[in-house]
Amino acid sequence: MVKVGIVGGTGYTGVELLRILVNHPQAEVVAITSRAEEGVRVDSLYPNLRGHTDIAFSLPKVEVLAQCDVVFFATPHNVAMNMMPQLLDQGIRVVDLSADFRIRDAALWSQWYGEPHACPEILAQAVYGLPEVNREQIKTAQLVACPGCYPTSVQLGYLPLIENGLVDNSRLIANATSGVSGAGRQAKVDNLLSEVSDSYKAYGIPGHRHLPEIEQGLRDVSGAEVNLTFTPHLAPMVRGMHSTLYAELIDSNTSLESIQQLFEQRYANEPFVDVLPAGSHPQSRTVKGSNMCRIAVHRPQNRNTIVVLSVIDNLVKGASGQAVQNMNIMLGLEENAGLNIVALTP
Amino acid sequence: MVKVGIVGGTGYTGVELLRILVNHPQAEVVAITSRAEEGVRVDSLYPNLRGHTDIAFSLPKVEVLAQCDVVFFATPHNVAMNMMPQLLDQGIRVVDLSADFRIRDAALWSQWYGEPHACPEILAQAVYGLPEVNREQIKTAQLVACPGCYPTSVQLGYLPLIENGLVDNSRLIANATSGVSGAGRQAKVDNLLSEVSDSYKAYGIPGHRHLPEIEQGLRDVSGAEVNLTFTPHLAPMVRGMHSTLYAELIDSNTSLESIQQLFEQRYANEPFVDVLPAGSHPQSRTVKGSNMCRIAVHRPQNRNTIVVLSVIDNLVKGASGQAVQNMNIMLGLEENAGLNIVALTP
Amino acid sequence: MVKVGIVGGTGYTGVELLRILVNHPQAEVVAITSRAEEGVRVDSLYPNLRGHTDIAFSLPKVEVLAQCDVVFFATPHNVAMNMMPQLLDQGIRVVDLSADFRIRDAALWSQWYGEPHACPEILAQAVYGLPEVNREQIKTAQLVACPGCYPTSVQLGYLPLIENGLVDNSRLIANATSGVSGAGRQAKVDNLLSEVSDSYKAYGIPGHRHLPEIEQGLRDVSGAEVNLTFTPHLAPMVRGMHSTLYAELIDSNTSLESIQQLFEQRYANEPFVDVLPAGSHPQSRTVKGSNMCRIAVHRPQNRNTIVVLSVIDNLVKGASGQAVQNMNIMLGLEENAGLNIVALTP
Amino acid sequence: MVKVGIVGGTGYTGVELLRILVNHPQAEVVAITSRAEEGVRVDSLYPNLRGHTDIAFSLPKVEVLAQCDVVFFATPHNVAMNMMPQLLDQGIRVVDLSADFRIRDAALWSQWYGEPHACPEILAQAVYGLPEVNREQIKTAQLVACPGCYPTSVQLGYLPLIENGLVDNSRLIANATSGVSGAGRQAKVDNLLSEVSDSYKAYGIPGHRHLPEIEQGLRDVSGAEVNLTFTPHLAPMVRGMHSTLYAELIDSNTSLESIQQLFEQRYANEPFVDVLPAGSHPQSRTVKGSNMCRIAVHRPQNRNTIVVLSVIDNLVKGASGQAVQNMNIMLGLEENAGLNIVALTP
Repeated sequence: MVKVGIVGGTGYTGVELLRILVNHPQAEVVAITSRAEEGVRVDSLYPNLRGHTDIAFSLPKVEVLAQCDVVFFATPHNVAMNMMPQLLDQGIRVVDLSADFRIRDAALWSQWYGEPHACPEILAQAVYGLPEVNREQIKTAQLVACPGCYPTSVQLGYLPLIENGLVDNSRLIANATSGVSGAGRQAKVDNLLSEVSDSYKAYGIPGHRHLPEIEQGLRDVSGAEVNLTFTPHLAPMVRGMHSTLYAELIDSNTSLESIQQLFEQRYANEPFVDVLPAGSHPQSRTVKGSNMCRIAVHRPQNRNTIVVLSVIDNLVKGASGQAVQNMNIMLGLEENAGLNIVALTP
Repeated sequence: MVKVGIVGGTGYTGVELLRILVNHPQAEVVAITSRAEEGVRVDSLYPNLRGHTDIAFSLPKVEVLAQCDVVFFATPHNVAMNMMPQLLDQGIRVVDLSADFRIRDAALWSQWYGEPHACPEILAQAVYGLPEVNREQIKTAQLVACPGCYPTSVQLGYLPLIENGLVDNSRLIANATSGVSGAGRQAKVDNLLSEVSDSYKAYGIPGHRHLPEIEQGLRDVSGAEVNLTFTPHLAPMVRGMHSTLYAELIDSNTSLESIQQLFEQRYANEPFVDVLPAGSHPQSRTVKGSNMCRIAVHRPQNRNTIVVLSVIDNLVKGASGQAVQNMNIMLGLEENAGLNIVALTP
Repeated sequence: MVKVGIVGGTGYTGVELLRILVNHPQAEVVAITSRAEEGVRVDSLYPNLRGHTDIAFSLPKVEVLAQCDVVFFATPHNVAMNMMPQLLDQGIRVVDLSADFRIRDAALWSQWYGEPHACPEILAQAVYGLPEVNREQIKTAQLVACPGCYPTSVQLGYLPLIENGLVDNSRLIANATSGVSGAGRQAKVDNLLSEVSDSYKAYGIPGHRHLPEIEQGLRDVSGAEVNLTFTPHLAPMVRGMHSTLYAELIDSNTSLESIQQLFEQRYANEPFVDVLPAGSHPQSRTVKGSNMCRIAVHRPQNRNTIVVLSVIDNLVKGASGQAVQNMNIMLGLEENAGLNIVALTP
Repeated sequence: MVKVGIVGGTGYTGVELLRILVNHPQAEVVAITSRAEEGVRVDSLYPNLRGHTDIAFSLPKVEVLAQCDVVFFATPHNVAMNMMPQLLDQGIRVVDLSADFRIRDAALWSQWYGEPHACPEILAQAVYGLPEVNREQIKTAQLVACPGCYPTSVQLGYLPLIENGLVDNSRLIANATSGVSGAGRQAKVDNLLSEVSDSYKAYGIPGHRHLPEIEQGLRDVSGAEVNLTFTPHLAPMVRGMHSTLYAELIDSNTSLESIQQLFEQRYANEPFVDVLPAGSHPQSRTVKGSNMCRIAVHRPQNRNTIVVLSVIDNLVKGASGQAVQNMNIMLGLEENAGLNIVALTP
């Protein structure tokens, strides 16, 4: 059995890692840390885990984590990067679900996160953990930076178009909607049910931290500059992320059929990307609790704007599920081990 | 007191008309029709009206409607147009909330609604009831075609940009989200709570009937061709509509401040359009139950794409409230009579 | 115009008072206080009020409040009682929406609220503001203690049974469900949408502070001891309160018809209590945003247990609406002035 | 591998059976029937199953079902009983999720379901599939009648009290709340999101079909007459069932501690009943998607009324999960095979 440690396990990505890992056939969680909840059983905080684990939160100690085959960071940004040099020195393999190592350019990171990066010298080692792009590097990586939820959903939707140079990279528009669980478990007035239920809003339009991450990823596959207008929104639901992606065809003779084929071929061997039949409108609930990304392609009115719809569960393919997928790849396990979960419907 | 008739009062726009009109200081509903519910008290179908009205549904009869100062059609499309010639002959003034008279071109109407128009000769008489554009014509109109919910929200958001020729009309993108009440009160599996709650989806992307209506409206104010990509979505909420509108600046020197000013001036005297401070993200709930449209303008990253956010209550400014606003204008009443409703928060 | 002051206006009962009062024909809010938000416009915190008021929060000063005809306290408990002696000395009339003066017995109050009462000598002056019981005393009261939300819903449902001695007072059971807005606008993890959406739970069963208040009220009208099992629950909705009340008939010959009649007679002249036809199941949404209480009576299987259903909007008849109703009574205005609001449906 | 057939697979209990069975290590669904959807792939109706099964709906044919080790009926009542004699003759083992065989008394069944029972002679063979009561009989049963959702939740909550004769059986009160998925996937106005969202209501208080089923089950374990007041309610959520059960202690000296112990002992070896620590308030979401029933016991104010809280997922322990649990017992598999699912939180 693979020994797994989780640093920062009290948040939603932490409990979601546990939900997946307690049923993983080859993994065992041996440590889960929290300074605030030290000694508290995880299932007293998250009763859904009663009967599935009796582990308790412990203090984050390097010597304990050093005994793990892989350590997940399910912490806010600015935690992992402070422990990372020491952990890597110990030879520990890490999957970081936070934002600390997603952006390769330390200056750009600082600009968006408002403080200096604690270990810029390590940034180059980090492999960006989007398996559909970087599977080979992930296999041997010591440090995997797990993508953000929006970046996962948006990049998977754009990849076939951009890799093949079919659209104008200078005017991409990603209009995305998330469930409220993406905001985490912090006590904030803005995320009270009474504030967000039965309502819908945009947020962060002047600049969301996932913008530079997406642009970096798309630039990597395009080899050219990319300009994205990224507008996140909040819908009154717990889980789910829906991206509506717009791109202008360079050649108006490119048929929708050929684009559909391209998407199907691109993802034919991907266990967690599902290209729907042409004309589909995927509901976010079709992936609730599962690690799937479902994608549909449209060309409204046969005009030049391609519309791609891409849904994920922000806590699974957008966070903890993708993290386990990365772990599986790193350790040579079946890529879908523990992840063969059917979405909850209804 | 103004005498009001409502044809087709069992749906959500019908009950919403009543909610507004029972507290309207100068109007009285004297007839509300339904073939299926003839003789049934309205408040037995809609208990929220108990204590506010004792009216019952009656059969739609021209001689009864002829005694009204104004008649609302709160019917599906294809009903109003069959009664309209007769009603207009009787001199009745009509506000039609359905789609029958929104599109001036009968052939275009047929193409989108899948059947011939029943009275194309009347189309030219109908005034499109968006008061912010057509207030003067509404005053004297005999037949007002009340705009659809999406068209209201989208046009109000684009108007200042397009009237002033600031953006490229050939590549507009309107990404809009509606609450489920927009789908009406029909028994459809797709709108069950178990099907749409805690989920989010797009629909109608290949072609939604509000597309030609919006393009017609924007073309009217632009004087030139308009190309819109329109993608409606469904959020798990009852009421509320949120449009995220994208447009490319023609001149990148146009400042966000000047655009903000333009919006504020454009709507300075409009009782039901509220331009929020720069940088705002209006929640749809801030207009729940009210006739307001709230608008905010953004220019992300100071690039060339302008993003306008526009929220309405789809059943009020998107339907019944705007219908009463039109009635007030037609009859020379205070434009906000009966409509001074504060949105419900929380 | 009646001059109104509101102490503690940043919470949901504060904004709800404003929603009602800005459309009240005879009242004007001249002061609304908040230490934390001093100088901030109310409509910047609550954009639903944009266009309806330009008032800003000010510090709570006795000399300002002294110019008001009535002052509302929309504060947590333990605030009003510290200012009350001084305010009453100034002759100010007060409607307190908090719990400070609801329980006449200072020792009982201390036991449930965990601290000594600050002015036990004033308790006897306070009139319990349930108009359906105490209308006459409210007219001349200087201090009205507005009932809690659960106590309003539960007492109105039980009153006709208990006033007429029809049921066994020693074994009453009130099973009640509230929307989340009842928990206020505090930043608490427990009330995040992600914690309470798509779920249902009981809370406070060992002892909720509304229990002694309800028992006191029922004892008053019964003249005898009352034993209530009170179990509050939380449903995933913003507003709404639904009480399912159980009582054992003393005489099994009492017919459901006679009980129905009794309820109808008891509330025949009450503007805000609506007894539904026998066999009804009132939805909480039929009172959303309105000051109505709707009640239905059942006798399942014709056995001896009477079941009463009673719904209110916890923020209106359960708080701010009832407060305005009390104000109207105190000042000799029409009792329903400003309160003729139709519930929002759908 | 065990061969499984599902009759009537288009509803929510059908898709839920599939969700569970596609990951069951020893079972394989070889037939799923629907007259209306014959030939249609299941995953085109339920996209959450894409990638997990390629089965299509077929016509219900006895010869196909005869090849199955077990056949589930996920049909409305009045379907299974018409096919049952023939199926049993063929030696097929059946788990019926419908109501056809839950009530042993054919006359009582007719009274509540409004028509004669089609095969009263078979009723005696049917074993009521509540494993916590009838595990031994289930092992050898040919026909198992899977309990209703409310009956499962209510009986599991009452069992320890009634088996031990601690409470007055003549005055039990079960106040229960269900998510909307319990109403199934039929197109009904009453279950539209716009009708039930952000609202709460009781229904069926004059008489719900689960009442006689619960009374029969409690009578069986009590050996005496049982009188239950049963009031079902609908909360605005998809899944989840919460029962608040009231019972009067016969001996007021019975301590809460002793009752807590009794519950813990009663369910100590039950894989799917979890007794929470004293004073707990289980949220329905703690079992969402899982087969667990979580129970908490209270004695408010140390008075004589015991309050038991019992939560299940109405589609899992209340239907399809319990059906698979029954199958596992019938076929001698591990009782929790395929059912070791962690509830989705958040």
